This record gives sequence, structure tokens and C-alpha cells, in this order.
Amino acid sequence: MTLAQALFAPRAVALVGASGDAAKNSARPLRFLKKHGYAGRIVPINASRSKVLGEPAFGSLAEAPGAIDHAFIMTPGDWVERAIDECGARGVPVATIFSDGFADAGPEGAARELGVRVLGPNSMGLIDVPGRVALTVNAVLEMDALPAGTTSFVSHSGTMLGTVLSRGAARGLGFAKLVSVGNESDIGTGELVELLAEDPGTKVILLFLETVRDDARLAAAARKAHAAGKPVVAYKLGRSRLGAALARSHTGALAGEDAALDAYFRDCGIVRVDMLETLIEIAPLLSGRTPPNLPRAARVAVVTTTGGGAASVVDRLGMFGIETVAPDSESPIIDLTMTATAERYTAALDDLLASPQCDGVLAVVGSSAQFHPQLAVDPIVRSKRNAKPLAVFLTPHAERSLALLAERGVAAFRTPEACADALAAYFAWRSPRTRAAAASAEWPPDLPRRGRLDERQALKLLASLGISVVAHAIAQPPGYAHAIPYPVAAKALSADILHKTEAGAVCLGIADRAELDRGIRAMLERVPASRAVLVQKMESGLAEAIVGYRDDPVVGPIALVGAGGTLAEIYKDYALRLAPVSEDEAEEMIAEVKGLATLRGYRALPRGDVRALAKAVAALSRLALIAGSPVAEAEINPLIVKREGVVAVDGLVAMKEQD
Amino acid sequence: MTLAQALFAPRAVALVGASGDAAKNSARPLRFLKKHGYAGRIVPINASRSKVLGEPAFGSLAEAPGAIDHAFIMTPGDWVERAIDECGARGVPVATIFSDGFADAGPEGAARELGVRVLGPNSMGLIDVPGRVALTVNAVLEMDALPAGTTSFVSHSGTMLGTVLSRGAARGLGFAKLVSVGNESDIGTGELVELLAEDPGTKVILLFLETVRDDARLAAAARKAHAAGKPVVAYKLGRSRLGAALARSHTGALAGEDAALDAYFRDCGIVRVDMLETLIEIAPLLSGRTPPNLPRAARVAVVTTTGGGAASVVDRLGMFGIETVAPDSESPIIDLTMTATAERYTAALDDLLASPQCDGVLAVVGSSAQFHPQLAVDPIVRSKRNAKPLAVFLTPHAERSLALLAERGVAAFRTPEACADALAAYFAWRSPRTRAAAASAEWPPDLPRRGRLDERQALKLLASLGISVVAHAIAQPPGYAHAIPYPVAAKALSADILHKTEAGAVCLGIADRAELDRGIRAMLERVPASRAVLVQKMESGLAEAIVGYRDDPVVGPIALVGAGGTLAEIYKDYALRLAPVSEDEAEEMIAEVKGLATLRGYRALPRGDVRALAKAVAALSRLALIAGSPVAEAEINPLIVKREGVVAVDGLVAMKEQD
Repeated sequence: MTLAQALFAPRAVALVGASGDAAKNSARPLRFLKKHGYAGRIVPINASRSKVLGEPAFGSLAEAPGAIDHAFIMTPGDWVERAIDECGARGVPVATIFSDGFADAGPEGAARELGVRVLGPNSMGLIDVPGRVALTVNAVLEMDALPAGTTSFVSHSGTMLGTVLSRGAARGLGFAKLVSVGNESDIGTGELVELLAEDPGTKVILLFLETVRDDARLAAAARKAHAAGKPVVAYKLGRSRLGAALARSHTGALAGEDAALDAYFRDCGIVRVDMLETLIEIAPLLSGRTPPNLPRAARVAVVTTTGGGAASVVDRLGMFGIETVAPDSESPIIDLTMTATAERYTAALDDLLASPQCDGVLAVVGSSAQFHPQLAVDPIVRSKRNAKPLAVFLTPHAERSLALLAERGVAAFRTPEACADALAAYFAWRSPRTRAAAASAEWPPDLPRRGRLDERQALKLLASLGISVVAHAIAQPPGYAHAIPYPVAAKALSADILHKTEAGAVCLGIADRAELDRGIRAMLERVPASRAVLVQKMESGLAEAIVGYRDDPVVGPIALVGAGGTLAEIYKDYALRLAPVSEDEAEEMIAEVKGLATLRGYRALPRGDVRALAKAVAALSRLALIAGSPVAEAEINPLIVKREGVVAVDGLVAMKEQD
Repeated sequence: MTLAQALFAPRAVALVGASGDAAKNSARPLRFLKKHGYAGRIVPINASRSKVLGEPAFGSLAEAPGAIDHAFIMTPGDWVERAIDECGARGVPVATIFSDGFADAGPEGAARELGVRVLGPNSMGLIDVPGRVALTVNAVLEMDALPAGTTSFVSHSGTMLGTVLSRGAARGLGFAKLVSVGNESDIGTGELVELLAEDPGTKVILLFLETVRDDARLAAAARKAHAAGKPVVAYKLGRSRLGAALARSHTGALAGEDAALDAYFRDCGIVRVDMLETLIEIAPLLSGRTPPNLPRAARVAVVTTTGGGAASVVDRLGMFGIETVAPDSESPIIDLTMTATAERYTAALDDLLASPQCDGVLAVVGSSAQFHPQLAVDPIVRSKRNAKPLAVFLTPHAERSLALLAERGVAAFRTPEACADALAAYFAWRSPRTRAAAASAEWPPDLPRRGRLDERQALKLLASLGISVVAHAIAQPPGYAHAIPYPVAAKALSADILHKTEAGAVCLGIADRAELDRGIRAMLERVPASRAVLVQKMESGLAEAIVGYRDDPVVGPIALVGAGGTLAEIYKDYALRLAPVSEDEAEEMIAEVKGLATLRGYRALPRGDVRALAKAVAALSRLALIAGSPVAEAEINPLIVKREGVVAVDGLVAMKEQD
């Protein structure tokens, strides 16, 4: 018996702690299994009743007869461990734990030793719609008919099982398997995506995520799903959370959990949606399709029977940078408001679906959608709808038309915002990134692997990665002699000062020896611990950039490039990718940074050396290739970008291990 | 008979061009009037039939018997004018024109002379739900029962009448009057809002806008509605449209139609929503309430039976800058997932609704909402729900619960995004701005009123408004003598060069006489037309700001302040208000500009003179007070902000009348 069989197709299910009071949560799984036609044996386990809701019950798992493939545990927290022991004793391969409240350590250690795989704790259970397994406490299962389909769903929130099922049902969208993973003490999102990638009944995989607990396994599973032609879509909470409070660099502060996860999803080919209903409605748009990997802004053609209704979607597409085009027409929208006939609508739609001038088609239907589907809904169904991605928005409340479209596999949306969100998510969809095998990098043997590097050490590390660094020298007391030509900058040499400028530990634009001496004296008064001083050449260029690297606790190494100075922080103007990145990928990142537009030729300003900047971004990201890399965060801020070449004038490097 | 009576309560309606073929659009008004119980006389006008759908028909308006209060005209465009003539001849006070395609000039001139008020052309008609007047071609009226309520709706899109009616009906939200204004040749949105402000059946007014055609009338009407305690809410298309192509300044390019309209809505107390369904769902949240006029970030308390469901709203609230607070609790959300009973839910909700620590309450209900409303939906209905704004989000498809809440006047939302959008719109809601009577300003008599001002004239205008301008002088050939102390800047004196820096018409940081002479020679080679040169003192400060003024074609004079240099443009980092603004209002604007955060004490950087910047913004905005002001656009870019004071170093002023 495979894990998938025990989870989704158990021949017998034990309901541990099943209540005989039909009003209680713990009575629901028995009711729901029966209501929705479970064909296997149901074995209620109840310490004080011999019958539960009409079924013979047993005092403990040990007493229950026959083989049991799956135990659903609802007992109070203290009793969970005993139930797991019993599962182990009689060879129950999978236990789903609804309970919470047991010891912090959780039951998974004991369960693993006993050979019992665990879903949960805090799992609301799972549902296999075509298989008629409704093993869940979710109250939405009171509904009469579960809509079957080929979309599967894995969720951190158990409530969302009911949310997607009931909302799907109201518009004719069906599901295959739905799983509430709870706290993922054992079976996690990644493993479930692996199982669904192998599941012949699943064509699209939807995820409702509160976090990512095993980034490597989920990434591998997403790649496996991609290889199997199954799109993976994520709705992820936590977008408004601020960056990690402990961040030691700008990179750390900027690359907060959510931005890093965005880079992660992109890296492993997961489509990310912004709105909750998009997650439900997007499946038909993606099903059977592969990532468009568009190298430019997407172009959408529009046909409509309502100007205002079409504009409500087009407006939003514009906010996503998606262009509206109309092949062979002057207006950007083909508006059939006053002239719609079924024949005209089909003809217009088929023209657009065949046109090489657009990447997708939006069809909008106005008031007729509710009571006169023959006018525009039927023509959509009859169109050559698989030739190109087709999204439909119906302006009125029109559940029957939504269901009609869903039945034919046409992606139909209830709101203009979800419609635009889905199209934008589709066009942003990329294949999982494949990396050329890169040579590993080396940690310079004379640099420490703990604490923080000082200025000179940081510049040395950057140079070792092949990044051009500013000419510099250490000037020692008492004479502070150095050979750097004026004008120069002087910095207190210390790994302990995080924000040197604010601490008065930096003097810029020093014109001559006398000014340097005055500057050093003043600086040493403010930063008494420092004695030696770093003297470096004053550099200027066309723009300043911030280039960063971070070993993110959730998704691993990431690379960052942003506008220099305080711009990246104030305007959140930066681009992120999982590290390492190639120079081409770095150029793509640079193109996403608005504040670096000046480098690409803004108005009549001279162009900067974008390629050299890209090389520096790629070089710093190679920190990810150092075996057992000690670096937590590394940052060049600023990297001066010139007409030719770049130069790093300030480096900050913090290790994972602190003293 | 008042206009409102003729529009919404006609004793007899003539349907001009009513078709006898029930399948045609032009047969619908007759069917819909009868279907929905119209109590007045229906008079079909049809040139070729004596009966239309069972009703006696007449060959022309002239032949129809009895008084007719309202004519609904569906004849082909060429025939519209004749129908209007006939309306005039027999004293029909209002004609709604569905037709389009008549002469460009439109029928409104003739209609006005004849004393006929016109709704349309291109109007889909209007509906008075409680009054049982369904005078429209909108196909959604095929629905059996129209939900009556106290929310009225004015729309540029006729389709949207059906959209809001049918979507409202599906969740128990009713309507009073719904009007499709079409092209507003005569009766416009402003006049209709006036009528609705006086309408005892209307408590909330919703607008679906494609543009604003009469800003002054709509603003006055919105103020009238505010005075009557009736919130006005707008959904406005065109958010992604770029600024006017003909803009001559940054201010013009930035303050595109949509941003200017945002300032306009705020000015006249109109609530703006971002999403289409928010427009439908927000009414109960606003009904009977006044603007909160919050001087700080809003605080919302949350009670839920689903962690994931609550997070989907809270996440979005965070993106709007709304804080989640939990009085007397460590967690920011009161999560009753495992412990919900009706009593606990009501108690938790009432505590929050009574707490002075939050400005509003969000209640989220999970899977129980669909089949067990007694668990959380009933408790919401029983709570002290009017004590504070209360928004409810239900995670499953739960139309009956939505209807139950709507029936009791509780604002309930189908999606987390619309729920957050509505709360954000409510908290951003402000009373219409009242302006202290300000002294008018004067146009300096020696400045031209056409074309553009040159640099010196622009500085003179700024100084006349009380703005501190850079020390400057005109240096004339051949000697170019001047008395400005070095270092100086030199600029070619010309009103014709728009982007002086790019044109090579500016020399900065000139250290001495010799350098000035070289600079002037080089400049005159690049800009041969210019002879005299403006010499001005080099200024520096803590930050640069852009301060702008524009007489917007849609909403009139507006004031702008933004981050200097190219930041305002690259990052769309600016604040707009209708002009004139007071100094306090200008300070509020400055606080909205991220790039000016440095002035308010960013990290350890010194603070700038925000008050002096505010004075300059207010001073420039007084251009709006000049009687018959000739200025189309005026801009200071940059205004240098110092620790004390500000100084304008560059001015651009373009008149409405060009040569």
C-alpha cells in the first residue's frame, strides 16, 4: 500500500474519538463519509459507546477488527500519543491528526519510529472527490453534491478546503483531492505536491500557503509537477509583513520573507496569484498549458458586449503592464454592445484567437450573460477556445453561465479584478529555472568565518569574487601614511559599526593631507575604539546601485540589486532572485529596477555600463556556491556605475556565526 | 411636475420605437415595465403596428392620447430629432434616449429650446425599484424579483445597472433608483446626485464613472449629499491611463486625469473604491455614518473562526497601512476557531465594538457560515453592531448568510479583497473640504498673459506670490557683467526651451569669472537664439522638492508637491490636492511623499524646514485665486529645502493661451 493509497483511497478508516452527538465536530467525519458515498469500512473508536451514529464502535484501535489503512484522530491532545502508539502496534500506515494541544515536541518522533506517517496535527482532514472519500471535519461538507474535477488543493488553512469546494461548486468548478496539511509535522506540502504530480486524476495543483517549511522539497516537487505538465499555483499570506527584525543589512531588511518567496516561486515555476478567488478560478486557464516565458510585455485582445465591463478588466490589466491590442481595428477593444449576434461574436473571437498579434484573449459578456447566454456565452463555448489562453468575465450575477463555461473548460471569472489577476499571473508564469553547472567558489583562506568582516576584509572578499573594488590602503597611526591619490575618503576601520555615515565614521571628499589629518582627528573622537583608518580613492559615476546577497532562512541564498542610496529602501525599488544568478539573469533583474532607468538611457542622460553591473551582481551571488558558505548577508552599497565599468566603494559582510 | 417625478415616477410612459418582436431589445422596456408592476400607463409608439405585445400602439407621439410624463426613445438615430420635436410639441417634460447614431451635434440644443429635458443619448434607461418603474432595455431585468433598498446608483455604463442589481440580489442587497446616464448631453451625474440627495428613498449614492464631465456641479451635489447625511461612493475607470500627452511640465505629466480625480473626490467628500464589487457591498458599511476624518493610521480589531480566512483580509489591510489591534489580548486576531460558541462569539464581538482602542471591527466566519449560521452569523446579527463600523467576511459560498446579514444592515463581503478595500475606503473617507475665504491674488501687471514666461519672469511671478527665490541677475552681452557672488549658475534666457539641462542651456557650479565666460560661450554655441544670460547663486540644501500647479481640464486647479529631481516621475512619488491649499494642508501633502521622508528626520540625517516648504506649496497654489488666472501650469523644480527656509532655483510657467 503506497502512501497515496493510504491517504486518499483507504479501504478502512478508523475515526478515533468519533462523537455520538451529531452536533459535535467530531461526529462530522462519520456523517460526511457516509453522506458522500465512501465505499470502504468506517470504524468509529469511542471509549464509552458501542454504537456511534448507528455504526458499531470500538473502545480502542487495538480492539477494532480488520486491516485499517488510515486513522483520523480527534481525541483530546493528551490522548493523541496513545492513539499513535496503537496505530504503530497494529500497522496503520497513516494517521491524520485533527487534535491540537499535545506536548510541544509533537507526536512525529514516536510516529516515525513506529512507521506511522502523520498528516497534521491541526489538520482538518482530506477529501478525494472522485474517490468519494470525505475524511474531514470541515462543515462545508454538509453540501449535497461535491463537484468532481481534475484540480487538487493543498492548504495550510483547513477552512479553505470548504472555501474552494463551495465556491467552486457555485460556479461549476470541480476538484480532485483536497488536503489540509495542518502543522506539517511529517507529511508536508512538498511531499503532497510530489504525490499529486504522480496522480493521474490531477491536472492542476493549487496551494494556499501561510509559509514554506521545506523549500527544497517543495521546489523539487514543483519541478516534478512541471515535468508532468501540471501547473502549480500558490496564494500566499504574509504579503504585508515587514522584513525580518534581525536583518543586519539593507538587503536583509528589503528581502523580507515575502519578497524572497516571490523569487522562490518564480525560480521553481510556481504561478503566484494575488487574490483568493483567482486561486479557484485560474485552474482552467492553466490546465494543459505550459509557461509562456514571455520575453516582453504581454498583449491581450478584447471582445465585449459591454464597454464599461471590458474597461473594468482592461484598466486593471494596464496596472499590471499588460497591453490591450486589437488586430485589424483602430479601437483597442472590439465592442459589439449594440451589434452582438451569436455569429458576430464567434467570428470576432475566432479572429482574435487565431491572430499572431496577441498572446491571449479576454471575452467580456454584459447583461445578456444571465438570461440570454445564446448571445455571447454559447458563442464563446463554440469558439476555437483552445488556440490561445482565453479568459471570460461576466458582468452580472450569472452562475448558470459560469457553470456552462466551466463545464467546457473555459476560464470564467466572477470579478474583473480576479480576471486581470489571473491573466497577469499566467503571463508572468515561467518554467522552473535550470542552472548551468557553475564552478564552485572558494572562501579566501585568510578571512575569518565568524562575526563580521571589517571594511578591508569585505573589499578583499569582493575582489576575490572578481568584483572591481576601489583603490584603498590602511593608514596606521601615528603618521597615517598612504599612497592613494587625492581626493580620498577615510573610514574608521571597524566591523562593529553598522551605519558608518550616521556614526560619523566616514569622511568624504578629502582634498589633501591637511584635511585628512583634521578628518582623522575628528573621526577618532567620535569612534574612539578605531585606530587604523581605511583611506580610499573618491569615486564618482553615473549612478549608484546596491548589490546584495542573503542566505534567507526560508528559501536559501538570494541575490538582490536595487537603486543606490536610500532609494531601494524608501521606494522598495529592487529585484530579487534565488542565488546564484547568471549575468543574463542579472541584466533582467536590473531592468526591473526603476531607479536604474537612468543607466539605460533616461531622457538625454548618458548610459551606464549595465553589463558590468550585471557581472558584479552575478559575482556576488556566487557566494552561494562556496561549500559551507559562512556568509549570512553581504552587500555592496554603493556600487558606483560608470560609463565603463563599476567599482565597489563600500562592503558589508556578516557571517551566520556571530561571536 | 418636478424633474424627479417625470424621471422616476411618470404617470404615463411613451415607448417610442417599441418593437412588436419580443426577442428585440426595443421590446424589452414594455415587457419589463409590466413584469415588474408598473402602475402607470404604457404607450407604445410604433409606425407600423396598432398593437405591440398586446398593448394598443400609436403611429406617433402626436397621435397618442393623454398626458405623457416620460418618453423612452429607441428609434434609429435619424428619427430621434423628430421624436424630440414631438415631445416638445405636446409637452413631454423628459425624454430618455437609448438610441445613438444621430448627428454629432446631438439633440440637446433643440430639446432645450423645446423645454424637454434629456437623459442620454446612449442611456439604457432607469429603474425605480420601490416605485416599480423598470424603464430600461437592460437584459438583467428578466430576473423575477428586484430587490428593493435604500441605495441608489448612477452609471456611465448601462450594463452596470444589471450588474449591481443582479449581484445585489444574489446577496440580499437592494436598491432604490438606478440610472444609466449615457453621454450626459443634458441631465448629468451631478444633477442626478442632487436629485438623489433630496430623495427620501435614498440613503447611499453609488457612482460608476468613466469620466467627470461637470466637476463643479458634481462637487456641489456631493456636498449637498454630505449635508443630507448621504455618503457618495465612486468606482472610476481609467486608473491605468497615462497622463495627458500634451503636458508641458512634470506636474502636467504626473497629475494625469486619474490622480487629479483622486484629489477631486477627496476634496468633495466622495469615497473612492478600487474594486467593482466593493461598490456594491460597501453601502451598508457607510449607510447612516459620517466621515471618520481619521488623523492617523486606522486600527481594526478582528474576531474570527478561521485563522487563514482572517489573515486573507488582515494581510490586505496591512498593504493599505491599516493596523490590526486586539484590545486586551496578545495576539492581533481573536481566533475562536476551535472554541466558537454563539455566546463566545457575541461576547468577543461586543467587547471589540465597545473598545476605544479600535476604529472598526472585522468579523470573519469560516466554513460554518454556509450550513451552521447559528455559530457565528447569528451572533453577529445579535451584536451591538451599530456601535462601530463592522465588516464581515464569509469564507465559503454562503448566499443565505450574506442575505441574512444584508437584511439586518450588516456589511458583508464575498471576497477578502473587497472587504479590505471597503474598510480602507471607509477609513480614508473625509468630509468635503471647506475653505476659509482667502484673499484673491494678483497677476503682476508687467508679466505677459500668453505663451510662456522666461526664467526671470517666472522667478518674478514666484516672488510676487511670496516665495523665496534664488539671487539672480541678467547678464547682457558683450561683457556679461553681474553682481552675484560666485559660485554661480548660468542659464540661457529663453521661454522656448523646455528641458534646459538636456538642451545644454544650463551651466552649474561656475567658480569664477573666467569659467563663466567659457560657459557662456559654449552655451551660446548650443543655444544660438539666446543672447542675454541669467546668472544665479548656486544653492544647496538638505533635499530638493518639486512644487507644482496645474489648471486641470477636468477638475480645475490642482497643487502638487513631490520628491525632487527625477524621483517624482520615476516613482510617482507626489501628493495632489485641489488648489488652493492652506499651509496645514500642504504639510499633510508633504507627509505623503516618501522621498521627502529625509526632511522629517530619516535615520540620523538633519531635519529640513517642512513648514517653509508647506508655505511655498500653499503660495504657489494661490495662482488659483487670481481672477481669470492665465496660468495653465506652473512649477518650481527644484525648490531647495534647507535646515531653515527654502529657495526656488528654477521656475517654469506656461499660459493657457499660447502664441
